[in-house]
Amino acid sequence: MGVSGVGKSTIGAMLSEALKIPFFDGDDYHPTANVEKMTNGQPLNDDDRYDWLLALNTLAQTQEKRNSCIIVCSALKENYREILSNGVASPIQWIHLVGAFELVLDRIDARQNHFMPSNLLKSQFDTLEPPANAIEIDISLPPKEIVQQIMNELTSKTEFGLFGLGVMGKSLSRNLANNNFKISLYNRHVPNTEENVALHFKNAHPELSNALPFDNIETFVASIQTPRKIMLMVNAGKTIDYVIEDLLPHLEVGDILIDGGNSNYKKTKQRSEYLASKGIHFIGVGVSGGEEGALNGPSIMPSGLKKTYNTVAPFFEAIAAKDKNQLPCCTYIGPEGSGHFVKMVHNGIEYAEMQLLAEVVVILKELGNNPDEIATLLESWKVSASSYLLEITIDILRKKEEGDWLLHKIMDKAGNKGTGNWATIATAELGTPSSLIATALFARYTSFYKEDRVRFQKLYETEASAPKLSVDEVFKAYQFARIINHFQGIKLITEASKSFDWYINLSEVARIWTNGCIIRSALMEDLVEILKDDDTMLANQYIVQQIDALKSEARTTVAQCVLAEIPVPCLSEAINFFHSLTTAKSSANIIQAQRDYFGAHTYQRVDDTTGKMYHTNWK
Amino acid sequence: MGVSGVGKSTIGAMLSEALKIPFFDGDDYHPTANVEKMTNGQPLNDDDRYDWLLALNTLAQTQEKRNSCIIVCSALKENYREILSNGVASPIQWIHLVGAFELVLDRIDARQNHFMPSNLLKSQFDTLEPPANAIEIDISLPPKEIVQQIMNELTSKTEFGLFGLGVMGKSLSRNLANNNFKISLYNRHVPNTEENVALHFKNAHPELSNALPFDNIETFVASIQTPRKIMLMVNAGKTIDYVIEDLLPHLEVGDILIDGGNSNYKKTKQRSEYLASKGIHFIGVGVSGGEEGALNGPSIMPSGLKKTYNTVAPFFEAIAAKDKNQLPCCTYIGPEGSGHFVKMVHNGIEYAEMQLLAEVVVILKELGNNPDEIATLLESWKVSASSYLLEITIDILRKKEEGDWLLHKIMDKAGNKGTGNWATIATAELGTPSSLIATALFARYTSFYKEDRVRFQKLYETEASAPKLSVDEVFKAYQFARIINHFQGIKLITEASKSFDWYINLSEVARIWTNGCIIRSALMEDLVEILKDDDTMLANQYIVQQIDALKSEARTTVAQCVLAEIPVPCLSEAINFFHSLTTAKSSANIIQAQRDYFGAHTYQRVDDTTGKMYHTNWK
Repeated sequence: MGVSGVGKSTIGAMLSEALKIPFFDGDDYHPTANVEKMTNGQPLNDDDRYDWLLALNTLAQTQEKRNSCIIVCSALKENYREILSNGVASPIQWIHLVGAFELVLDRIDARQNHFMPSNLLKSQFDTLEPPANAIEIDISLPPKEIVQQIMNELTSKTEFGLFGLGVMGKSLSRNLANNNFKISLYNRHVPNTEENVALHFKNAHPELSNALPFDNIETFVASIQTPRKIMLMVNAGKTIDYVIEDLLPHLEVGDILIDGGNSNYKKTKQRSEYLASKGIHFIGVGVSGGEEGALNGPSIMPSGLKKTYNTVAPFFEAIAAKDKNQLPCCTYIGPEGSGHFVKMVHNGIEYAEMQLLAEVVVILKELGNNPDEIATLLESWKVSASSYLLEITIDILRKKEEGDWLLHKIMDKAGNKGTGNWATIATAELGTPSSLIATALFARYTSFYKEDRVRFQKLYETEASAPKLSVDEVFKAYQFARIINHFQGIKLITEASKSFDWYINLSEVARIWTNGCIIRSALMEDLVEILKDDDTMLANQYIVQQIDALKSEARTTVAQCVLAEIPVPCLSEAINFFHSLTTAKSSANIIQAQRDYFGAHTYQRVDDTTGKMYHTNWK
Repeated sequence: MGVSGVGKSTIGAMLSEALKIPFFDGDDYHPTANVEKMTNGQPLNDDDRYDWLLALNTLAQTQEKRNSCIIVCSALKENYREILSNGVASPIQWIHLVGAFELVLDRIDARQNHFMPSNLLKSQFDTLEPPANAIEIDISLPPKEIVQQIMNELTSKTEFGLFGLGVMGKSLSRNLANNNFKISLYNRHVPNTEENVALHFKNAHPELSNALPFDNIETFVASIQTPRKIMLMVNAGKTIDYVIEDLLPHLEVGDILIDGGNSNYKKTKQRSEYLASKGIHFIGVGVSGGEEGALNGPSIMPSGLKKTYNTVAPFFEAIAAKDKNQLPCCTYIGPEGSGHFVKMVHNGIEYAEMQLLAEVVVILKELGNNPDEIATLLESWKVSASSYLLEITIDILRKKEEGDWLLHKIMDKAGNKGTGNWATIATAELGTPSSLIATALFARYTSFYKEDRVRFQKLYETEASAPKLSVDEVFKAYQFARIINHFQGIKLITEASKSFDWYINLSEVARIWTNGCIIRSALMEDLVEILKDDDTMLANQYIVQQIDALKSEARTTVAQCVLAEIPVPCLSEAINFFHSLTTAKSSANIIQAQRDYFGAHTYQRVDDTTGKMYHTNWK
């Protein structure tokens, strides 16, 4: 690409020979009317260009299937380039030939047989919107050198950099390599503990034979084609900021940093703004699927400027899991930290799903089942409630070590890495009650007071007896609570989307959660359709039927567990929340009266729809 | 006070005549040994001074009871002044006579009959630690003018400024005036809506006859004795920062700003640091008691530098409520934002106490009682569970309007002003599960979805029936949940105190919550003693007995309410939390296994006490 006269056709043809891929001159695809206009010295307008760009886009899509090609086109404006790229799944490498106006003018004047009068050149320079994501080449160099430079960028340099080779970074690297991307790998050098990590990793995996390994930041960055796409897979928090500072001196304007960790969405917004001030683009990406998902296809939740996302989309869409229609489990979420927000809610839902399973396993144990028997029961639940977390819980229950179940050997203090905590904070800040997430978080916190628990168990009398429950009742309580949990999680995204003007497509969020991620399930498949029509799951007729068929057993299960001294905080909160949200008249009038009594906070009246505030002297 | 030779005795005697209060020359109280030492040109050491300072302190305490007095003493060091002030409840006004070394030296050389040789003066100047909280007077002025200046400061100027005359600001002002403090009052001037607010307020209340009203910041600030003590009673949040900026140009180094609003504790820390950089002291104060408490005696939770607190303590301790031993319900909480943190937890406990009462009222209603009958039942609970919130709920239930209960007219959407929200965030951030506070907050949020509630009630089938419960069971469930709520709230303060090195005295916190504040109750009286020995309430034998006598009914109540479709989120969470915290073996081993399965997060083993982390290949 580039203005007329920079030598696009010449360089394109030479490059085609060097790379052994076909070459197409965009000018050959102009409708006759356009050629006439230009010959008569009239500039083309955007309507003139539209059909031409569509023709070149069709060409690109056709050639993509046959591997690759070089297309020459001025492509001066961002929206022309968008039309040209539309529907092309492979990464498009823009090569921008750049020269000073006088130099280009001299070259055009020296030409014969070309239909571009030089007096149109000025308008081309005015129209040009230089792309942020192109390899820029100076046309004052001899053509051979230009081709050599491009070849260097394209062949010796890699397409994508992966920074940080922890569990997730390693899996994503292998996934990228398996999708035939040429990548650079970096891991920090820590004497004695982390030495040549990238090199050893590359050598251990044949699919990485084309990857370039580094433990020096400068050479790592230099090895990547500009505009660089570098994905950070390091610990969330301060580390990200340190890494950004380490990278900045080596980056160029237009490069793209991608944060694939579980960063706080507020921080992602701040980092975007900071990096934008330095001309660097920033994409915050939620990645779910754990080690295995990252390797074989994770669910990917990217956010940032849409234009920047488009540049990295081919990589993400290639490595993402595929939904049941073979579409990638990756969709553009929205601006700023929306991707990390959605990932945070994903993890919050995951916290509650895990807690519900933990509660269910304990209930089934109290009903007299050993872990193998519980696994068998859960196995039967897969028919109507299949999910990844159910699957792994079955595996866990069955795992043995020296004749005993391994589960019995695991310390009952649950850890957390921040996302459940942040989701709870977000639900408090946004004024929307995702109470199951909070309850699951608090259950983990409570488990952490192991010494207190042991001490208190001895201090307090127990009157425990086995709950009077059938397995079917427990199953229905579990399914009931899962629906409430998903409702609350989706509601949290809805409220954030409204609050921050993110315009998040909820059905698309559910769709990319149907595969690759930890909370994939049959219920999630249902939500893809349900959320197309209505952002309030609970008003959906299918959900109403489901809940009506489950709620009585949910009540019985909670009541029986409470009586039997089995802690079921999440199951309890699910039914209490449901009762609260389906009560036209809540007890909040009492609270409003109390607030007015002691704090003169005033209240609204049910018989005054104007919203006027009243105060009463209560004594 | 001041070094020798500045004219303390002369000015003190003149001032005594002008103010008509007795005068005492500190030098007259020196033990003979000290006088001899000084006559021999030997400087006194701190041991020499100790008995002397104690004698003067006794003098001050004796005179305080007889109204007031003037005492002259060099009082060069901060710790001397602390000894002198110890146990004096009224505000002490330090007057520091200040002069250049040469001037003072000249005056001493000119004197006869004084036992201070001038060669000791240098050591006095070296020793002097100028107080931040004194009226400073330049001794180069003629004595008459000096006395006039002091008189001006003492009589025409006020002792305390109150900034912001909302509900709480007004009540606190009247409380200060009722305690004979001379105060300046300020309220902003907003044309047409807020004009001469301070003046009108003063004129409406005879106790404010000595108060000075302002709607101009500059004259307001100038009207207060230095170092100024100005209490801000404005809306928490950004307003505080704006007000600080408005005040700063008029303040002097050493002035004290007091934030009496419900500010976020993190912000209070930031503001302290910001103001310290400008030489201004900052005290963050939690004030509870609502409009009435603020007027007749609130509970006060101050924090900041202890030294600064000592300066404002006489005001706070005078206006605070008194506990059963007539001690003020005001105690120094700790540094930074600890006072606002403790107030935030106070409000969090209040949220849960209010929600528990709301749940109880609904249960009693479902048992077939009308509001008057419920009030009568609650009245009987006062014998063993008296509390301010129970009292006001009884009043509320009985309030009628045109023959119907007013409660029926109040819109059931509960508001919140931030502290419950912050308490929930704090509990998430600090990793300690104050789940009842969070649950109460979420119940308010849920009530806010009124339109959804009305819509959903119609969509879902109800199978509701009256709960099979006795009033006694409901009462016991209520008391049970209150103990859990208080345990969680105190635990939150404990964890914050550990985390931030605040060294908060929990028993003192309970003590200042026994009167004046919204959560005062018989239970709080018990906690004063219980928390003296143990920061873990639940290990206290009395609490163990209480809970053992209540928990069975708590289970029955929750089980019956869940079956009867009555939302009881807080009662439910109380019993679930108790079950979780008294279970030596929790279900968290399942969660740890799940985390290790999909995220390689590793786990600890019960048979390895070294804390080593293990990873399993689970498939």
